This record gives sequence, structure tokens and C-alpha cells, in this order.
Amino acid sequence: MISRTVYENIRKEVLEYFSKCNIKLTKEEKEKIEVADFGLNRIRELGLQLIEYINTDRVCAKDLVLLPGQTCPEHLHPPVGDSPGKEETFRCRYGTVYLYVSGPAVENPKTTVPDDKKETFTVWNEIVLNPGEQYTIFPNTLHWFQAGSEGAVVSEFSTKSTDENDIFTDPDIERLPIVE
Amino acid sequence: MISRTVYENIRKEVLEYFSKCNIKLTKEEKEKIEVADFGLNRIRELGLQLIEYINTDRVCAKDLVLLPGQTCPEHLHPPVGDSPGKEETFRCRYGTVYLYVSGPAVENPKTTVPDDKKETFTVWNEIVLNPGEQYTIFPNTLHWFQAGSEGAVVSEFSTKSTDENDIFTDPDIERLPIVE
Repeated sequence: MISRTVYENIRKEVLEYFSKCNIKLTKEEKEKIEVADFGLNRIRELGLQLIEYINTDRVCAKDLVLLPGQTCPEHLHPPVGDSPGKEETFRCRYGTVYLYVSGPAVENPKTTVPDDKKETFTVWNEIVLNPGEQYTIFPNTLHWFQAGSEGAVVSEFSTKSTDENDIFTDPDIERLPIVE
Repeated sequence: MISRTVYENIRKEVLEYFSKCNIKLTKEEKEKIEVADFGLNRIRELGLQLIEYINTDRVCAKDLVLLPGQTCPEHLHPPVGDSPGKEETFRCRYGTVYLYVSGPAVENPKTTVPDDKKETFTVWNEIVLNPGEQYTIFPNTLHWFQAGSEGAVVSEFSTKSTDENDIFTDPDIERLPIVE
């Protein structure tokens, strides 16, 4: 659970990132910034902020904000019903994002993860995204990502988003956010 | 056909718009800005510039640039094979976009179209998009749009883009661009 005070503080920081990137939001959008702590209650370490612009049966677009060093935990998007699962492209707009996907593990990763959660990060194929760089993740592919020291803003272009179907490696995680 | 000189001049203007919006492109992307004159050879009146970030079988994302007063001609995205047709969301990032779709015609439209092409603009349901505002166009819906006096930058989030299937009202139009 995220307290209203923590939510409000982080929301303000997120709006500053968008402003730095010259990303304009409507008043309504500014009020509905999502702050996801995945039920872990350690938002600045393990968490993610975002605004969803559109999410129809076919298309979804979001802008994500990561605070400095913040990590979005490892997960995948499985097939659901008739759909092969969510396909998503991450395009870095600001800062640096370290993205990890299935594949050959990098020898000296550029990031570290919390010691007590180490076993919940199992894929270490490292992709570094700087502003203007992007990477596409096809369904059923384990992935996680972490921002560099400046934080990061990332555009996500994808098929329909159904967060409730995401499968996280960490069994302690609840995807759907609960704000006090 | 667009001459190499016209292409290069417009490409430079487009890069200035992206720079104004703090939109970062890679070196390769800067080289492959698309300038579409629809075969009409009146690019600053009837045309569109864009960079395509991703276009898979399921998802497409582009950033569009419109020069001051430039108009993207009326067209629709029909069903193709098993697909219901392209669905697209336009999100204004900079400037003002006047978007027209099927529906009740506005009495005093905020734009004018070239006199000799008037009959090729048949839908006049007016939607005005300022930065942060967006609109979703479902398949098989006639639409066209024009930038205000500052020009405009517009993000497009959509299903797969297959320009060659677009149906334009103006029979003189060829969608696929030809650069000298």
C-alpha cells in the first residue's frame, strides 16, 4: 500500500520529469499518474510510474518514468485467450535505461539489484538504451529494467495492456497498485 | 516526385520541430525522415512528414510533423485481409492540429482547404487538438487534418501501418512517396 503522502510526492517528481522532456499532459492526466510499488512498499528501489494515454483492444501507449536507480521487477506477458500476449517497444526519451531480457548473461552488468531480491532477477542479457534508442520485447519474454542515476523517461508502444495477467518472478509481488 | 533539394530543406525543418519538442532521434532515424507529398507536388500545402519508430504485425508508432497550415489529405484505413483495418490515436505534442472526421459538419470551420481541391474534403466534423490532447480514429473512418500557424508535432499510436492500402478521396493521390 502506498500512502497518500508518498503518492503525492512521487507524482510531483514525475511531473517534473515530464516537464523536463517537454511532454505535455492534460489536467486530468496529471491527476491520474500511476505509481506502482508492486505491493512491496519499497517504491524508490522497486517500482514504476506511468501515464497511460490509450489502451484499446488493439493498441496501448504509455509514458513511463523511473526514478534514479529505480527498478521495474522481472516479469513477462503470457498469452491470454486468443491473444499471443503483450508485445511492447520501449523507447528511451530521457536518461539511461538498463534493460534485461532472456539471452546470454552479460559478464559485468552495469546495475545491481537489492541483495534480498537477487533470486528474483533471473535474466541478464543487457541492453542499454539512451535517448532515441529503443528495443522491442515480444510476448512471453522475461524482462526487467532499471534507470541510471538521472532517472529515465521511456515511451511504451504496445498491444493491449492487461497488467493483471503479467507474471512476475518475485512471488511477493502484487501488480495492481493499492493507494491508501 | 520530390526533388532532393526540397526533401533536404524540409528534413531540416522537421528536425528543428523535433528538437523544439525535445524529441531525440538516432543518427539513422534523422536520415530516414519521410516526406510525403502524395504525388501532388505541393508539399507545403498538401503533405506530411514523419518518422516511423516501429511497425510490426501488431503495433506501429510514429511522430508526425506538419508545417504551418499544411494539410494531410482526406483518407481512410479499410479492412485488409483478416484485419479490421488500422486504428490510430493522434496525440498532439506541439502546436495545434485541426482534425476532421465523419460526423456532423461544423458550421464555421477553423481551417480552409485549397480551392481547387475542395471537393476532396468531404468530412467536416471538427476536433481541435492542443498539446496533450488526443483523439482515436477507428478503421474505415474518413479523416484529414491540418496544422495551425505554428505547425504541429503529433504522436501516432496505431495498429500495423500499411500505407499502400489507404484510400484517399482525391483520385490524384499516390500515397507512396517518390524521392528523385
